[in-house]
Amino acid sequence: MGFFSRDIKTMNDLFVHTLRDIYYAENQIVKTLPEMIEKASDPGLKQAFQSHLAETKNHVKRVEQVFQMHGVAAKAVDCPAIDGIIEEAEEVTGEVEDKQVCDATLAAAAQAVEHYEIARYGTLIAWAKKLGRSDCASVLQKTLDEEKAADKKLTDVAETRINLKAAS
Amino acid sequence: MGFFSRDIKTMNDLFVHTLRDIYYAENQIVKTLPEMIEKASDPGLKQAFQSHLAETKNHVKRVEQVFQMHGVAAKAVDCPAIDGIIEEAEEVTGEVEDKQVCDATLAAAAQAVEHYEIARYGTLIAWAKKLGRSDCASVLQKTLDEEKAADKKLTDVAETRINLKAAS
Repeated sequence: MGFFSRDIKTMNDLFVHTLRDIYYAENQIVKTLPEMIEKASDPGLKQAFQSHLAETKNHVKRVEQVFQMHGVAAKAVDCPAIDGIIEEAEEVTGEVEDKQVCDATLAAAAQAVEHYEIARYGTLIAWAKKLGRSDCASVLQKTLDEEKAADKKLTDVAETRINLKAAS
Repeated sequence: MGFFSRDIKTMNDLFVHTLRDIYYAENQIVKTLPEMIEKASDPGLKQAFQSHLAETKNHVKRVEQVFQMHGVAAKAVDCPAIDGIIEEAEEVTGEVEDKQVCDATLAAAAQAVEHYEIARYGTLIAWAKKLGRSDCASVLQKTLDEEKAADKKLTDVAETRINLKAAS
């Protein structure tokens, strides 16, 4: 880890460390989504991934904005959690031949990613508020709202289109 | 992986594979929670982890019940996602000296675990229903409800006790 965890002494250190963790995660998601768009067959799923890629690029910028507001360098630390979630998604989707089953796998993988982000942003917002940084909390809240909406959209797409087709 | 992912041809295969993934995850959580209970200082957090350990042991049994209902062997497949989430939690908490900051880290780590499970159970329930297994879906729904409640409880404990103390 670039930012040694033994340097985490205060809530502020923990906040900055977790911001660097999500910065790494968002950047990994920006790298991974184009591959998922390519693999997706259902036009609704493809479109959901495309619009989430645009949002995710904006999430990266928002994290950079929070780094700046908080007066710390915008840098990333390794995040074994998101690496594990993405590794698992690639392991499973890479070997599924049937297009509809692959779409169901992709949607489920994306929802695991969304939930990781929902947990982390929820925590970051709570910590920012406790640290008296409601300005940072407001910026992070916008992303949390979009992550929750993306998760809901994936549930809708999966429920109405993909899973139904894949089970038939 | 014990269950080769190239064997995932149908929605049913995917359902069984994901059931094996969550079976592995639940068992890893049973192994990890005692360590988290030991590390936690706040009595409210300790208690939340203790009661969730009891619940998690029951979640393992419920997954075994679903395997049996569905007529497949109860076995686990590696789950890099939960391994990554736990690895990250251990990396960060292991090096934080301050007890209150450590508690904030533990609560955040547990919420990342909860959200992984919420995503996976949500998916499993949707797939069970599409496969005509509402009986399996009902069993899995009980666990999903408990995971959501555990996440909410952690938010309450973190908001009212831990983060406030750690920021002071």
